[in-house]
Amino acid sequence: MNQRIQERVAALREEMKKAGVDYYMVPTADFHNSEYVDRYFKMREYLSGFTGSNGTLVVCEEEAGLWTDGRYFIQAEKELAGTGIRLFRMLDEGVPTIQEYLKQNMKEGQTLGFDGRVVDTALGRRLEKALAGKNIRFAYDRDLGDAGWTDRPALPCHPVTVLDEAICGKTAGEKLADVRQKMKEAGADAFLLSKLDDLMWLLNIRGADVECNPVALSYAYLTKDDCFLFIQEGEVTQELKDHASKYGVTLLPYGQVVSFLKERKEKETVLFDVANTSYALSCALQEKGETVEGKNPTELMKAIKNEVELSHMEEVYRKDSAAVCKFIYWLKKNVGKRKITEVTAAQYLDGLRSQIDGYLDLSFPTISGYQENAAMMHYEAEPETCKELRPEGMLLVDSGGQYVGGTTDVTRTIVLGPVSDEIKEHFTAVAVGMLALTNARFLYGCTGRNLDILARQPMWNRNIDYKCGTGHGVGYILNVHEGPQGIRWRFTEGQSEAVIEAGMDVTNEPGIYIEGSHGIRTENVMVARNGVRNGDGQFMYFDTLTWAPIDLDAIDPAYMEPREIAWLNDYHAKVYEKIAPLLDEEERAWLKEATRPLPLS
Amino acid sequence: MNQRIQERVAALREEMKKAGVDYYMVPTADFHNSEYVDRYFKMREYLSGFTGSNGTLVVCEEEAGLWTDGRYFIQAEKELAGTGIRLFRMLDEGVPTIQEYLKQNMKEGQTLGFDGRVVDTALGRRLEKALAGKNIRFAYDRDLGDAGWTDRPALPCHPVTVLDEAICGKTAGEKLADVRQKMKEAGADAFLLSKLDDLMWLLNIRGADVECNPVALSYAYLTKDDCFLFIQEGEVTQELKDHASKYGVTLLPYGQVVSFLKERKEKETVLFDVANTSYALSCALQEKGETVEGKNPTELMKAIKNEVELSHMEEVYRKDSAAVCKFIYWLKKNVGKRKITEVTAAQYLDGLRSQIDGYLDLSFPTISGYQENAAMMHYEAEPETCKELRPEGMLLVDSGGQYVGGTTDVTRTIVLGPVSDEIKEHFTAVAVGMLALTNARFLYGCTGRNLDILARQPMWNRNIDYKCGTGHGVGYILNVHEGPQGIRWRFTEGQSEAVIEAGMDVTNEPGIYIEGSHGIRTENVMVARNGVRNGDGQFMYFDTLTWAPIDLDAIDPAYMEPREIAWLNDYHAKVYEKIAPLLDEEERAWLKEATRPLPLS
Repeated sequence: MNQRIQERVAALREEMKKAGVDYYMVPTADFHNSEYVDRYFKMREYLSGFTGSNGTLVVCEEEAGLWTDGRYFIQAEKELAGTGIRLFRMLDEGVPTIQEYLKQNMKEGQTLGFDGRVVDTALGRRLEKALAGKNIRFAYDRDLGDAGWTDRPALPCHPVTVLDEAICGKTAGEKLADVRQKMKEAGADAFLLSKLDDLMWLLNIRGADVECNPVALSYAYLTKDDCFLFIQEGEVTQELKDHASKYGVTLLPYGQVVSFLKERKEKETVLFDVANTSYALSCALQEKGETVEGKNPTELMKAIKNEVELSHMEEVYRKDSAAVCKFIYWLKKNVGKRKITEVTAAQYLDGLRSQIDGYLDLSFPTISGYQENAAMMHYEAEPETCKELRPEGMLLVDSGGQYVGGTTDVTRTIVLGPVSDEIKEHFTAVAVGMLALTNARFLYGCTGRNLDILARQPMWNRNIDYKCGTGHGVGYILNVHEGPQGIRWRFTEGQSEAVIEAGMDVTNEPGIYIEGSHGIRTENVMVARNGVRNGDGQFMYFDTLTWAPIDLDAIDPAYMEPREIAWLNDYHAKVYEKIAPLLDEEERAWLKEATRPLPLS
Repeated sequence: MNQRIQERVAALREEMKKAGVDYYMVPTADFHNSEYVDRYFKMREYLSGFTGSNGTLVVCEEEAGLWTDGRYFIQAEKELAGTGIRLFRMLDEGVPTIQEYLKQNMKEGQTLGFDGRVVDTALGRRLEKALAGKNIRFAYDRDLGDAGWTDRPALPCHPVTVLDEAICGKTAGEKLADVRQKMKEAGADAFLLSKLDDLMWLLNIRGADVECNPVALSYAYLTKDDCFLFIQEGEVTQELKDHASKYGVTLLPYGQVVSFLKERKEKETVLFDVANTSYALSCALQEKGETVEGKNPTELMKAIKNEVELSHMEEVYRKDSAAVCKFIYWLKKNVGKRKITEVTAAQYLDGLRSQIDGYLDLSFPTISGYQENAAMMHYEAEPETCKELRPEGMLLVDSGGQYVGGTTDVTRTIVLGPVSDEIKEHFTAVAVGMLALTNARFLYGCTGRNLDILARQPMWNRNIDYKCGTGHGVGYILNVHEGPQGIRWRFTEGQSEAVIEAGMDVTNEPGIYIEGSHGIRTENVMVARNGVRNGDGQFMYFDTLTWAPIDLDAIDPAYMEPREIAWLNDYHAKVYEKIAPLLDEEERAWLKEATRPLPLS
């Protein structure tokens, strides 16, 4: 029996009773629907004991249930044992969604409670729709778990920094003008921006409130003439004050955003997005007046990197790639000679990155998976339990850094000793897929759904799939995952797709994951560029930003066409050209060999 | 001055005055929004003198305008000269759409007239939306052009035939039951079917009212227990009467569909599709009661060919391909030795087809374009003006037949003599694209947008595009173009896409069209099939139905990878294996040479 969790749920039920709430829902989100959340926001983990990144707890008097996805079924079962909380395996046959569950169980006239600040508008709407006609009251203005969580961490609060305009390519003033133009086109007088990375981009500022994501908890409310930035006082520096005053930005306390919106006298039609604006905020907006629901205009602007950003990225990626090359060299030289584990290998790489000029942070915790561990896409090595590396098989390392000048993301699967013929075939197929997408030529108007098959075809030819997209956008000194661009193949009725625009960056990361055996991923970051324009349209291609060898120890040219071998040789020649100057002599000699051209047939 | 047309427009204006109509619109469509229309429906051509396949005439007291697309600008200008009708070049900058034009010009309280039977519901809705708030009356119940067109052809009316159930794979009774099930799932009590090929498929009948399309003008109204078929009395044979009675189908006069719907007493929620149901019919439905707008459930059922259909198609395609092979042999042997023109070449091929067992008709008028004429995708050779073939360059022939057992569609570009190196490169690129799509392996869930780039990449690699889709569905003893499947790449927000299902047939026809120089297209028909199913999903591949050599006289292996050469050799080996038995000795010897394997590097 897990008494601690049972007591926490009981305490929550007490608060529910006091508040007149029959069902209470706790999702995993912050106030901005960020991909990663700070400890402050881990209420669902506190209440349920389940530590996975995705899960929603629903509590009523008779029952408590936790919904999570297939990645976490085994872990959740273990962590929920003895808590009395029932596991709902999402997408399994016969398992109701939360909406279906509430619809089936809630009675006419009952009250559903949740903290409306951590439920995004789209989810709130789905709940409204599912429960329509049952006269259900929504109590969304209180966090009922807070009272019982006596040692809850404080809201993260770190000083904000202002970026040097020279590395931004556009001033905050110019960006504000661009967004105001888009507001006008959308028929809006004002724009409420809740998405943290969009907001950082807009004002050329950065924060440190979310691990690996240089964002500050904040909201912006932009009108034709004014811009209000809601931010904790502890984050406001003199630098930020000066910057804000230069661009007509008024600083207001973070906690005042709801009351500001409710009390604002001006009649304004307000643009906001339903995905990242909390239910609490959108309800406040809609009680006041007219709204326009649309995408944040900042999203597309941020995604298209300008030439200043791109030139800094090129430089940063070169240095970051050199760290990866040094790491591979070190690893191959030392494996089997000294004790190296999945964790210490990652630490060595992290250490190399930290020595690079302008290093700020990792862009995500380094993934380091040896042998069959690499087949788990969300594997996190722990110091106590992780594998020791031996001179055989492969280590998959997916890593990246935050630098003044860019955010990186790169994966290499490194051969540490003998590998099977099957592994060589798989490794070669992954490399061929990555190179085929790299060398794509396409007309303007393509989206990721048109291109995905170029990377995936070598795997599909072998009746193998990697169950994820091929690529995602990458921020500029911002979140390692950003949209709207992406390389994915599945069709979803009614889903919007982002046309690939010149200046958009995207990862290219096909893989093969064989459970219990091995995992392979090779990942570069690329930038879309305009090529020839003629009567048939604007042709486009990708420039590569990442320069690290693809391990020839697992390449079998028997599985490659001459053109594919030429692509690989061409890539490797450039790796040597760009990275050799950043290495010492011994490393350089190794890189020369690691990037040697393969014979063409 | 074109007095004849001016008089016709004047007569229309008289009718408009009598009917109190201020603006009158004449589109190019039949009552079923068919792709091809009979002479009876060419009212717009009669009134304007413009003979192109796409165009809409709008007439008011002061002005008459004709809207058409880029394919027809030059032709329309010529044909409209002296008529007083103004040409509106669709999609040209600054040119209003018809909706914009009407919105700009119609005055509060005026009346817009059109024959509501030839305007589909989707277009009617767009007009309603554009003119909302101007208090415009819609007069859609009369064909105001009819009175003046004294020598108008009669409605086409040909006896209907009933297909032998042995070649259908499913009886009409089974299909009716399947559709009733879909009606139920859509929450409908009844289903109004206006789309002619869907209707023919549903009842296992065929007509002859539209050139090359074996369909009969008709409507069906299906309820849980009844099925009403509206069809001209002149089309009803004893065979049809027996068939109808066997499956509980009541035959009613074609012209009574509107009054039937208006007068029907039963309260029914009626399913219909907005694309193929006329505005007149959908208004009648909506005045009566509840409707459900959705796709015709017949569309997807018809698109997925069953095994009986597929086995007949295989046989028919083999014979049809043999005719194409005989034609290529004859052409190569005789060009330069006797007089052959674009038109007489097509006639020779049409003649070969007509000798095949079960031949019914062509599936579309044979396209035969020599040299630069092949670069015009909609080229129609005329006996008086067409080119004579010489022993040089290439002839593009796109053709197909209707047979008891299938509908075919095949294109080959045939080398008649020396061709340039550029042409060889282009020809090889087209062949490589066609073969790459043929050999695609993909997971269930893919739509044509995922696959198109496989065919198009060799062209895009050369900064060339073909400005059309790569493939379309093909009917079974039905229209040569059918949906919902297709291989296209462009994204349209909100547009539905058809997942490729096992049993769907689709053309594979990449090309290169260089204006004033040459045109190349190579087209096979393929069928999607299920391959391996494993933990990653259901893998799929294509089977080919078309067997005719790809002209090695224009293939340059220097532009091919070994794998691509192997694909070509493999295809050619199968062409010989399948077609040789259907040829005479001389033809067979030629085919052996025409399908010889190329060395692998």
